[in-house]
Amino acid sequence: MTDSARAKRPAPAPVRPAPSVDVAALRALLDGPEHGIRDFVRQRLTEPQFRHRYGMSHHDYREVVFDWLRDLSSDGLGALHVPEAYGGKGDIRAFMAAFETLAYHDLSLAIKFGVQYGLFQGSILLLGTEWHHATFLPAVSKGELLGVFAMSELGSGSNVRDLETTATWDAAQQEFVIQTPHPGAHKEWLGNAAVHGEMATVFAQLHVDGTNHGVHALLVPIRRRDGSPCPGITLGDTGLKEGLNGVDNGRIWFDQVRVPRTHLLDRFGGVGEDGVYRSPIESSARRFFTMIGTLVGGRITVGLTALSATKSALAIAIRYGNRRKQFGPEGGNTTPLLDYRTHQRRLLPALATSIVLDIALSKLVDRFAPTEGESNREVEGLAAGLKAYTTWFAQRAITDARECCGGQGYLAENRIAVLRGDIDVWTTFEGDNTVLYQLLAKGLLTEYKQEFSEIGVIRLLGRRARSALKAMNPVTARKDDEDHLRDPAQQLGLLRDREERMLDAAARRLRAAMKKDPLRAMFEVQDHLMHLAEAHVERVAHEAIQEQVERAGPSLAPLLALLRDTFWASAIERDLGWFMMSGIIETPKAKAIRYLVNNCCEELRPIAEEITDGFGIPPEVLAAPIARRTANSEQRTAK
Amino acid sequence: MTDSARAKRPAPAPVRPAPSVDVAALRALLDGPEHGIRDFVRQRLTEPQFRHRYGMSHHDYREVVFDWLRDLSSDGLGALHVPEAYGGKGDIRAFMAAFETLAYHDLSLAIKFGVQYGLFQGSILLLGTEWHHATFLPAVSKGELLGVFAMSELGSGSNVRDLETTATWDAAQQEFVIQTPHPGAHKEWLGNAAVHGEMATVFAQLHVDGTNHGVHALLVPIRRRDGSPCPGITLGDTGLKEGLNGVDNGRIWFDQVRVPRTHLLDRFGGVGEDGVYRSPIESSARRFFTMIGTLVGGRITVGLTALSATKSALAIAIRYGNRRKQFGPEGGNTTPLLDYRTHQRRLLPALATSIVLDIALSKLVDRFAPTEGESNREVEGLAAGLKAYTTWFAQRAITDARECCGGQGYLAENRIAVLRGDIDVWTTFEGDNTVLYQLLAKGLLTEYKQEFSEIGVIRLLGRRARSALKAMNPVTARKDDEDHLRDPAQQLGLLRDREERMLDAAARRLRAAMKKDPLRAMFEVQDHLMHLAEAHVERVAHEAIQEQVERAGPSLAPLLALLRDTFWASAIERDLGWFMMSGIIETPKAKAIRYLVNNCCEELRPIAEEITDGFGIPPEVLAAPIARRTANSEQRTAK
Repeated sequence: MTDSARAKRPAPAPVRPAPSVDVAALRALLDGPEHGIRDFVRQRLTEPQFRHRYGMSHHDYREVVFDWLRDLSSDGLGALHVPEAYGGKGDIRAFMAAFETLAYHDLSLAIKFGVQYGLFQGSILLLGTEWHHATFLPAVSKGELLGVFAMSELGSGSNVRDLETTATWDAAQQEFVIQTPHPGAHKEWLGNAAVHGEMATVFAQLHVDGTNHGVHALLVPIRRRDGSPCPGITLGDTGLKEGLNGVDNGRIWFDQVRVPRTHLLDRFGGVGEDGVYRSPIESSARRFFTMIGTLVGGRITVGLTALSATKSALAIAIRYGNRRKQFGPEGGNTTPLLDYRTHQRRLLPALATSIVLDIALSKLVDRFAPTEGESNREVEGLAAGLKAYTTWFAQRAITDARECCGGQGYLAENRIAVLRGDIDVWTTFEGDNTVLYQLLAKGLLTEYKQEFSEIGVIRLLGRRARSALKAMNPVTARKDDEDHLRDPAQQLGLLRDREERMLDAAARRLRAAMKKDPLRAMFEVQDHLMHLAEAHVERVAHEAIQEQVERAGPSLAPLLALLRDTFWASAIERDLGWFMMSGIIETPKAKAIRYLVNNCCEELRPIAEEITDGFGIPPEVLAAPIARRTANSEQRTAK
Repeated sequence: MTDSARAKRPAPAPVRPAPSVDVAALRALLDGPEHGIRDFVRQRLTEPQFRHRYGMSHHDYREVVFDWLRDLSSDGLGALHVPEAYGGKGDIRAFMAAFETLAYHDLSLAIKFGVQYGLFQGSILLLGTEWHHATFLPAVSKGELLGVFAMSELGSGSNVRDLETTATWDAAQQEFVIQTPHPGAHKEWLGNAAVHGEMATVFAQLHVDGTNHGVHALLVPIRRRDGSPCPGITLGDTGLKEGLNGVDNGRIWFDQVRVPRTHLLDRFGGVGEDGVYRSPIESSARRFFTMIGTLVGGRITVGLTALSATKSALAIAIRYGNRRKQFGPEGGNTTPLLDYRTHQRRLLPALATSIVLDIALSKLVDRFAPTEGESNREVEGLAAGLKAYTTWFAQRAITDARECCGGQGYLAENRIAVLRGDIDVWTTFEGDNTVLYQLLAKGLLTEYKQEFSEIGVIRLLGRRARSALKAMNPVTARKDDEDHLRDPAQQLGLLRDREERMLDAAARRLRAAMKKDPLRAMFEVQDHLMHLAEAHVERVAHEAIQEQVERAGPSLAPLLALLRDTFWASAIERDLGWFMMSGIIETPKAKAIRYLVNNCCEELRPIAEEITDGFGIPPEVLAAPIARRTANSEQRTAK
């Protein structure tokens, strides 16, 4: 910084008054059209049998969660997604909302619910045809037949296309023979497989008359009612985990396991009575992506449940931060923790981000729900990117919330610690986050190339010229007044500019790396692709919250705008190095953005607890004693 | 960035060949003069009774850990620190090394060891006098009398000076009466209190004849051999936690509990037979800091044990990353995970940082050990800062290592997940990290003010002029060749420059904020203080590793230099926003530093596993199956 720049250091703008919080309106916005089912689930979870219990063995915990699942299934929660013809409601949005709400209570319950109704039942719905629906959905949707989604294998891991289990057509018997080709190729990490599952949707390479038609799914009975494995099946228990121990993850090995021809889920490819393989999808690549399309809805709900956990943790930590007093300018313990800037900075941008991401995911649900089962690269890419962004965010936010509650946060009864152990696997399951960011980034690059080849060099050069112009405009790059920084158009402009430049740069670098060494090219640009995916998600999330700001009434719009500003400023602050390297932001603006984060925190501070009321988590479900008691003077009975 | 800057974008320098790893020399460096005790503990931990076990109830786990503790105490490990006159070795360094080594095995064991021998026994050693030593050390040092370090209270939390328990002198009976003044003021989070502790060092406000002499420590029996509480004592169980469940944390309430006059640990203040309070330390503030000086050694070992856990996690994840193959440029699963840049960037800077911090902590031990018990603000500040920096680093690194092992990392048997649950509380206990960073930063500001008042304005202005000169020197700020970036003098220059500017800025801001509103001043500058503390720790750590580079022989120096470069480049990269805002670094140099992190990762990649061999963790202790098997083809037996 030169001395003249130093002289121009901006003074922080005065903190604006906090907007009022219309809790009912905020809750209505977050609940959306599914408020009915959400309220129903919330109400059910306050019943005494759902009381949180800690310190059980993982064996006992699995049974408790199974009991909870059956209890909720008795109300038809598992059938929300099922067509009316089979006793359901045909409402995927209601199903996703119920799933998301369960995650306020217990993440093992939410995941067991997701395995049974999202993955297992979902695979029958999406990949099966009428016979499968009529035969299996009635028992599956009531939780009477517990199922397993047997996709993952130990050996192939994230590389689903190269999984090794085979299903070979035996024309003589009109059966498929399922085989685990070697001991390390077993199915692994399958929810419901260790104890409760009786049938599995098994993903396998389909071999018919010596031809491999790629990955297909078959329904395979794995366990009898008495718990013993079916013939040819070996079952294993994945064992004790860091968290999520209420889900009975297990392993399956297949040795010459036979199922009838009809058990192939044959909507996108099957073998007729004549023994001939037919598929409505010509391209085997497109068929593969359609087959694993069941994961797209799963990824969206993984994001939604991660947010439920984050909201619980933030609601607890913010309540504690309002009550717990430590130190004080004049001695004694007079200062609520939430008055400390470090405390505010750890909790309040996260609070804003959790709401912004909730709105972004809801918007994605709006696009996904009407076309479920259809391949849509943009929805798939965004589901992947939002899943990765949201779960990494959740991991950080819950860690910070735990730490903000000190030792109290480390106690199981205060719940954040339990959420912390559970949430770690969110970054891994339904697709490793690193792999998912690359999936999104590669999609963006493909789109970019198409655009480029369609519209040509002129447009690309135009875009670059625009960017360069902006960058060379020191007025914009240094503009530091708060009205400018809070202008949604300039906020979005910055996010768009970053994404476009990163896309340009990634394409350019990839081309250069391909020339140098095609086999190493992807390694060379991998970190750029990760950054590009993050930039894309933040731009999309900003657009989503801004739409709601514009749509909101006067009782909600100022609050939503503040949440948007907080999300934006803290996202830019995390990436200031890049923005400054690119010349998009210069020192005065960079400093003003840091001040803006502080000011947003100060504005949010008095209303933070009210905002968490907008999540509508019932006190019985939130449950943590530190969220209720006056934290410095609480009374406890000795055990 | 202007177009001319764009044209000057540096090409990444070619990756240099990896230095060779002299595992024996690296291990000798890390083990230091205490290699004998380290080898002894390592050897003991390979015995079959120390095999890792998972899935026990926390009640059973506590008993297993107690058995382990007694087993190790039988060898005199608990007496290492005790003077030879009482059967010990009088060797604080050996004690700390043993403690650090135990943390490779099980963090609950390490902490129970630390509670008994570091905190409880340490308080008798440091705060007691001859009678206490002769009376209690023999039983305590053998683990025959389990003790509790009863400092924390629920109400006062981090604010030890304002704790509420009282010890009131009863002249008539020549006794002290210990009292918990209200139910929320009980002692909380005390290791050994829930089940095994029989005596406690109780920190209480000492009242003599109506005068409060501040916080003092007394030895108070709390539990009889049969497990029942002593008269007037109420004991509670803190309960199930996120991790560390092998330690029986508990609560204590005191109701008119009486101990003889001699039970006051009276080295720094006591009551004579005449009932008069006397202290060798005049200032009550200095007396307080001396009393809680027992925490300084504790903070250093907290840092060391966090590093042991991190090294275990990295050793496991790097072994897995070398064996596990996923995807590949030509299809199939042919690429070891560690070939991916994202994977390298998550594990290898952490590997370098763990060694740099190890060396920095060892240097602190060198300064601390000879003067243990003496108040030394610089050692106290650095112990606080390194504890905070190291434990936050450990939390991130273990989270990343877990994630780099995917689902396998989430399994208890692969250990990282267990370490993850344990390590979270490291950021909280022995002083909340946020509080500790402020302690360090305030110490630096005090020093700065003293220097300023001693040497005056001239020197300060000189320093600023130097900084400004450097900043205005575009040659240095833009210099981007790798030889320049790897020059330790310029590296240290950058770190020093940052620290000095932050110190200047923090002092200036604090002055301005004090003028505006003295009661809010600390809140206003809190985030600057946190940043200053971090900058200080990174500068000190860089100096420590550079000393070792200079001292090392030719078989080790190139490796240590690479570890230094990696630590430095990744630390600067994390804070690029600040460096660019300050004008110390401009775009070309910033980009070159990003490339340098990539290049350092590439250089470390082929030798990463060998480097972890330098930690000397025995395979029986590392234990994780994924660190041994070929990860894609492992064979498992079903349960």
